[in-house]
Amino acid sequence: MNTLKVALLGAGNVGSEVARILLEDSEVLASRAGSHLELIGIAVRDTESKRAEHIGHELLTTDAEALVDQADIVIELIGGIEPAGSLVARALRRGSVVVTGNKALLAERGAELFQLARDNGGHLGFEAAVAGAIPILRPINESLSGDRITKVMGIVNGTTNFILDAMDTTGADFGDVLKQAQDLGYAEADPTADIEGYDAAAKAAILAMLSFHADFRIGDVFREGITSITAEDVDAAKDAGFVIKLLAIAERLDNGVAMRVHPTLIPREHPLGAVHGAFNAVFVEADNAGELMFYGQGAGGRPTASAVMGDLVSAVRRLTRGIGAAKDADAAVEVNQSNIKALGIENVLTSYCIGLTVTDRPGVLSRIAAIFADNGVSIEQMRQTRGFAEDDQASILRIITHRGSEQALAKTVESIRELDVVSHVNSVLRVEGN
Amino acid sequence: MNTLKVALLGAGNVGSEVARILLEDSEVLASRAGSHLELIGIAVRDTESKRAEHIGHELLTTDAEALVDQADIVIELIGGIEPAGSLVARALRRGSVVVTGNKALLAERGAELFQLARDNGGHLGFEAAVAGAIPILRPINESLSGDRITKVMGIVNGTTNFILDAMDTTGADFGDVLKQAQDLGYAEADPTADIEGYDAAAKAAILAMLSFHADFRIGDVFREGITSITAEDVDAAKDAGFVIKLLAIAERLDNGVAMRVHPTLIPREHPLGAVHGAFNAVFVEADNAGELMFYGQGAGGRPTASAVMGDLVSAVRRLTRGIGAAKDADAAVEVNQSNIKALGIENVLTSYCIGLTVTDRPGVLSRIAAIFADNGVSIEQMRQTRGFAEDDQASILRIITHRGSEQALAKTVESIRELDVVSHVNSVLRVEGN
Repeated sequence: MNTLKVALLGAGNVGSEVARILLEDSEVLASRAGSHLELIGIAVRDTESKRAEHIGHELLTTDAEALVDQADIVIELIGGIEPAGSLVARALRRGSVVVTGNKALLAERGAELFQLARDNGGHLGFEAAVAGAIPILRPINESLSGDRITKVMGIVNGTTNFILDAMDTTGADFGDVLKQAQDLGYAEADPTADIEGYDAAAKAAILAMLSFHADFRIGDVFREGITSITAEDVDAAKDAGFVIKLLAIAERLDNGVAMRVHPTLIPREHPLGAVHGAFNAVFVEADNAGELMFYGQGAGGRPTASAVMGDLVSAVRRLTRGIGAAKDADAAVEVNQSNIKALGIENVLTSYCIGLTVTDRPGVLSRIAAIFADNGVSIEQMRQTRGFAEDDQASILRIITHRGSEQALAKTVESIRELDVVSHVNSVLRVEGN
Repeated sequence: MNTLKVALLGAGNVGSEVARILLEDSEVLASRAGSHLELIGIAVRDTESKRAEHIGHELLTTDAEALVDQADIVIELIGGIEPAGSLVARALRRGSVVVTGNKALLAERGAELFQLARDNGGHLGFEAAVAGAIPILRPINESLSGDRITKVMGIVNGTTNFILDAMDTTGADFGDVLKQAQDLGYAEADPTADIEGYDAAAKAAILAMLSFHADFRIGDVFREGITSITAEDVDAAKDAGFVIKLLAIAERLDNGVAMRVHPTLIPREHPLGAVHGAFNAVFVEADNAGELMFYGQGAGGRPTASAVMGDLVSAVRRLTRGIGAAKDADAAVEVNQSNIKALGIENVLTSYCIGLTVTDRPGVLSRIAAIFADNGVSIEQMRQTRGFAEDDQASILRIITHRGSEQALAKTVESIRELDVVSHVNSVLRVEGN
């Protein structure tokens, strides 16, 4: 049995788990992959760091480029655009197998790197970059290769799902739950990337690339975070049979693909409604297969390491059998096959759940309803309750629309905002899956 | 672009959808697969049958063997052991690519056919045989190739899930719901294979083969159907926060793999608890990945055809790139790698939910509790309610145990059955996921 040299870049949460598996499970891995996998080195920023200590100093190096140049296989778990991008490109130019979990890099330079892999007979595995341990690359790229994907909706950020799930369960406010999530280690000290939807937007671009074979970027994704979601929004959604989730959505329209990330009401009995805590799930609609969902842990050292190892073993199996990495195109992604355009959110059809504080007097409802009618938006349900406001003439109105164009819906909300009987537009949330 | 000849065996629900896709989507398929796929013939029992009519008479033949001998790729959708088995073996001996949805055949002769594929440079794709449209073969075989699967639990039979879900939703009795399912076409006129768990047992064997790389058969699977589930069982489960599902379970124990199919109580908030109607789902536990679930339509012409086409396109992609089918071992299954034994259900650890009708007098509970203690089984919860029986001295007892050995649990039930104060053991159901 031959031996392949593995270089590991990064020794964080995921990196140290990958190192552990490579060292502890080397026999099982060899029997599955058909080659011995020798961990020849781990590139870190600082060989004296606490983090790297438990792995063994003899493997550590700060010279990542030299390490890449000696390896058959490079596992990139540094994260961020640079120096990760240059190192991945360097390895691919040598025709190496590269496995990465770097969503930021893929959402920014994916198409270029896939092309580099093809041109030089290398291979870029990235299962770990989307939804952690959940196998989604192969199901979309191979199992659905004879079908047509129409829409992908994912809960792809564990932090925001933890927060929204806790708000749903306990009725607590966003701020309190965020603090709790930070104390438990589910949210970072600076939670911006998660709660403002940047992380989910990168994953939306990657999911869209995979599903629709075009070169999409994070900048193509409409993005709205969860910071403005209140306990009242969660409660009102619950009352109407919905739960609020931050969804990453990519859907095929007549003339392109629209990508968006925003808090979304989905029916409680929808499969995505049962995704609790920090779990992730990706819901796929295809012409023939119908509805599919893939569920699992979207983050964490061990789950993400499992996805890295799956990519690694699959790639090595093919190398071992003499299938050049260049021919290993089943697991690769062809993102320049089509000239499918990225479309703005104004092109999608969706429905809105609108919360209003209105003056409680005769004729108000009919004036509001008229605005919906004028914009061609039809109302699915409307519910009026007494407001909590000191003003006892105020009442709270919740309106859920049927599906309509985003443009018509947005225009409707603008017109309603200008009505004198409407004292406040409390919330506007999109609804899916109904 | 070269052309590959495709033979289709069978023109039932799935077969006619596959024929439609091959004929209607031929351009898209060619661009994805890298070769034209030419449907050269469809083998049917009777070329004059109504069913086959709408496909086009010129493609129909009753000489399946001659058709197989002319084809590069054979799609077997006849079902059953023979003649399907001989035709599949014939094609594999010629080194052809075979795609099948035949679970009965795989659960009976899988290992032999996989070997035949390897020996002759052929390939056997069977994604469609397990859980219809749900991609499960590649996630288990490739994405988890660097991990260790410990347990697989699946809702793999749509008919029984439809029935149990309807019982749970409406409170109706088994018989009424079965009739309704038959009227709606969700259950066959002779529903035995579904409701007695034979279909699920075949799928359990295939899932175990895939997950644990050993040659398991349907005969290795412990099997118990859903015909004895009453509205009272469903109601009692609901009351305790559970839902009853027919699960196919395969789990790794110290000295082998135990496979079983039986009605099971699972917590309502468990991901499998949210699988409604005729949908299927497979829940996988792995050392590093943790909990994963794959959800989708488990049956039906179009969803199953989607899985067939995925296998077909993946296999053709590799053929097109000059990767011999023999080398295409990533998508193949190595079932003789290990000498892992099949174990009987007496080896598993599970918990029981036991329903008893008992005489309502002092000391009864303590006598029953003593039997649990004597067998080393600890009680998780016990609930006593007034019975519906005419005998007003009778009450209903529901006991849920902690996890214990199947042997100890079965012995406990035997001893309880013999107590004079126990007038009836109403139900004994296993509990998972708690």
